[in-house]
Amino acid sequence: MTEQPGPERETAGHLPTSSAAAHGTRLDPWLGAYADRTHGMRASEIRALFAVANRPEVVSLAGGMPYLDGLPLDVLGEIAQRVVATRGLQALQYGSGQGDETLREQILEVMRLEGIDAHPDDVVVTTGSQQALDLVTRIFINPGDVVVAEAPSYVGALGVFRAYQADVVHVPIDAEGLIPEELESTLAALSAAGRPVKFLYTVPNFHNPAGVSLSVERRPRVLEIARRYGVLVLEDNPYGLLGFDGEPRAAMRSMDADGVLYLGSFSKTFAPGYRVGWVVAPHAVREKLVLASESAILCPSNASQIAISTYLSTCDWRGQIKSYREMYRERRDAMVGALAEHLPEASWNVPDGGFYTWVRLPDGLDAKDMLPRAVTARVAYVPGTAFYYDGAGSDHMRLSFCYPTPERIREGVRRLASVVAGERELVELFGTSASVPGDVVQAPGPDVA
Amino acid sequence: MTEQPGPERETAGHLPTSSAAAHGTRLDPWLGAYADRTHGMRASEIRALFAVANRPEVVSLAGGMPYLDGLPLDVLGEIAQRVVATRGLQALQYGSGQGDETLREQILEVMRLEGIDAHPDDVVVTTGSQQALDLVTRIFINPGDVVVAEAPSYVGALGVFRAYQADVVHVPIDAEGLIPEELESTLAALSAAGRPVKFLYTVPNFHNPAGVSLSVERRPRVLEIARRYGVLVLEDNPYGLLGFDGEPRAAMRSMDADGVLYLGSFSKTFAPGYRVGWVVAPHAVREKLVLASESAILCPSNASQIAISTYLSTCDWRGQIKSYREMYRERRDAMVGALAEHLPEASWNVPDGGFYTWVRLPDGLDAKDMLPRAVTARVAYVPGTAFYYDGAGSDHMRLSFCYPTPERIREGVRRLASVVAGERELVELFGTSASVPGDVVQAPGPDVA
Repeated sequence: MTEQPGPERETAGHLPTSSAAAHGTRLDPWLGAYADRTHGMRASEIRALFAVANRPEVVSLAGGMPYLDGLPLDVLGEIAQRVVATRGLQALQYGSGQGDETLREQILEVMRLEGIDAHPDDVVVTTGSQQALDLVTRIFINPGDVVVAEAPSYVGALGVFRAYQADVVHVPIDAEGLIPEELESTLAALSAAGRPVKFLYTVPNFHNPAGVSLSVERRPRVLEIARRYGVLVLEDNPYGLLGFDGEPRAAMRSMDADGVLYLGSFSKTFAPGYRVGWVVAPHAVREKLVLASESAILCPSNASQIAISTYLSTCDWRGQIKSYREMYRERRDAMVGALAEHLPEASWNVPDGGFYTWVRLPDGLDAKDMLPRAVTARVAYVPGTAFYYDGAGSDHMRLSFCYPTPERIREGVRRLASVVAGERELVELFGTSASVPGDVVQAPGPDVA
Repeated sequence: MTEQPGPERETAGHLPTSSAAAHGTRLDPWLGAYADRTHGMRASEIRALFAVANRPEVVSLAGGMPYLDGLPLDVLGEIAQRVVATRGLQALQYGSGQGDETLREQILEVMRLEGIDAHPDDVVVTTGSQQALDLVTRIFINPGDVVVAEAPSYVGALGVFRAYQADVVHVPIDAEGLIPEELESTLAALSAAGRPVKFLYTVPNFHNPAGVSLSVERRPRVLEIARRYGVLVLEDNPYGLLGFDGEPRAAMRSMDADGVLYLGSFSKTFAPGYRVGWVVAPHAVREKLVLASESAILCPSNASQIAISTYLSTCDWRGQIKSYREMYRERRDAMVGALAEHLPEASWNVPDGGFYTWVRLPDGLDAKDMLPRAVTARVAYVPGTAFYYDGAGSDHMRLSFCYPTPERIREGVRRLASVVAGERELVELFGTSASVPGDVVQAPGPDVA
């Protein structure tokens, strides 16, 4: 989590030291006992930097936190009160492993905005859509199985695939998203090599981190290719309703109910603190997902589900999404305007929705190497390497425009531009910039959700 | 979930049919794509029965739901309102993967009642302690690894171990809990066979389902044996503060900080609907658990955590636990009184805390075979087979006294006695009772938490 000021975040950066002192040792007596999968779990080397980046004086263009100041907190407080006072015996009790049925019906209403026609029984409510990612991976992936994903791809999904010892094969994208011809040749090569591909993971709308969307023309082509190769499509769509222009695009799930698992979330269109997401799946897969979720958490929180359900039934949630869209569009404008003014030597896309700009640095610059100096200059971002399975992406960085105000975004880009200028001088003098140790970025955690 | 009346629970029993009709098929086109671990996930054959058992006319002695009617819902409603209205920007936002620091400090206060001395940094907040079970299993278990557990053992833990393809070896218990000599000989035999034991899973207080507690004398002996064999102890303690007589026993974690992972929960001492549990782990293990949890859910719900934190800091939570203890003691008395009156041919223990009585049926009776007839007679329980990895336990059943009122408990036992009498007549006539198909009970879900 970034840019949240206050004592808790500040303290968090110091605690490991005091804990190590309190316990006298950091040795791990259980080192030999871990499962194989655990050896792939490592803290990102950028984590320590993010602890610093959380300080209020740093402009963080790193996080994926939505900006919540526009929410009607007094109204939401009354809802929370009513949920507990009048429906407490249900809200505070265990619930269904699949999720509250009323909420599942309301989720259908939300998804109808993207053309999805489903049954409440097809929906499984999860603890954020991150848990849906975990459950889908859990039921499909054996160690060594292949997941095909965009290059770049959402860092939190890559972390899940790594945790289940999958192998991720990236497919290039362009301004219209996943390139069907590249997908086809990748699947053909994997098939020829006898490597089973379990699913295609894709963020078709306002991609994290690349900011692009899969064009409406390409959607049926991608689905047709996946179907032909017997590959399930995992459509991850947290940002689909946050487009800046026009109507939402039709979801891939709306074109293929049997071949697509659809992941949705209230984290970006409402608020992440309740941790409510969902997955829509064909009947038999849905049954497995419910069993897997019961094993993982027994059931999602009734209190959270009923709060969101009441919000949806009593508040103007469409109006809230509209005001989010306007706010994020203004911030996107601030971001691309500041880039044009201060960093014309870089290149970037102009996203028409979502939270992120994907920036290519001038030749010779390395986004990960540069990060410590950026944080020293009081600006933070996520280096492109976080979004590749194989350490590629060092020439890119992800800049988020979701959380800081337009003014802070402009200030952040100004600071970034001075860091880039300093790096370019170093490169001109020495042919390279100094390097921080470490390789592929691992599990950066909620900081860069 | 059992005994929750109302339209939602009723509907849930019918939906699969309508869904199958809506989709026209129950075939699974992705059957060949599942991971190996998924083939071990099966719905319990008692699940369909529990859908019926949820009807209000059935007395369910099956569920592990706490009885929440005594909670001050008006006060909790005000807390929920305050949390959102005054701290909404934090409560509705992403939080730390490890959990809210204030709550982690308060958890230390709760655990101090059982003699545990820890640092807030040792605590990881989870989505119920079920998620803690999942995370611990995830980081330690390779397929084929051995987990040692009491015979019988908590069904939800067995489900997690199965989901990670562990092999569970049971160790007998008696009225004082796990038998140290049996643990030692089991570990010795496994060691001689070259089979790595990753951890000992134990519920030392008011065992689920057996109702017994590990005596204070045995605790250091069990720890010493585990240490000698290099086996981590997973101490699962949701009921420790719900003893009916005297002070809470000292936790095993209070005697060994490096060799014990401790699982705690607010589900039984407060309410399960917020889904807040925790794990206390040695430093290095804790780091792995945080990474695993971030991969699984990004972070636990801030809204839930702050609600519980505010409850702990502003309400008399110790008084609430005391009133729970008195209520459950009264229900325990109703249960054992009714058993003595109506089922003297069975045998059972008299638990001094928690939610469960473990009942041995008269010779020749099979608890799983009998269940459909019991549900027909409007009483439900969980057959003993659910609590064994290997299908043992058919001569036992778990009777819960947590949710139904004393009067309903007595009525339930009366109904059960008439079913048992009918079974005994069958056995006397034919030498056996009729059987339902199916074998080991799998993943019964939140119904029997």
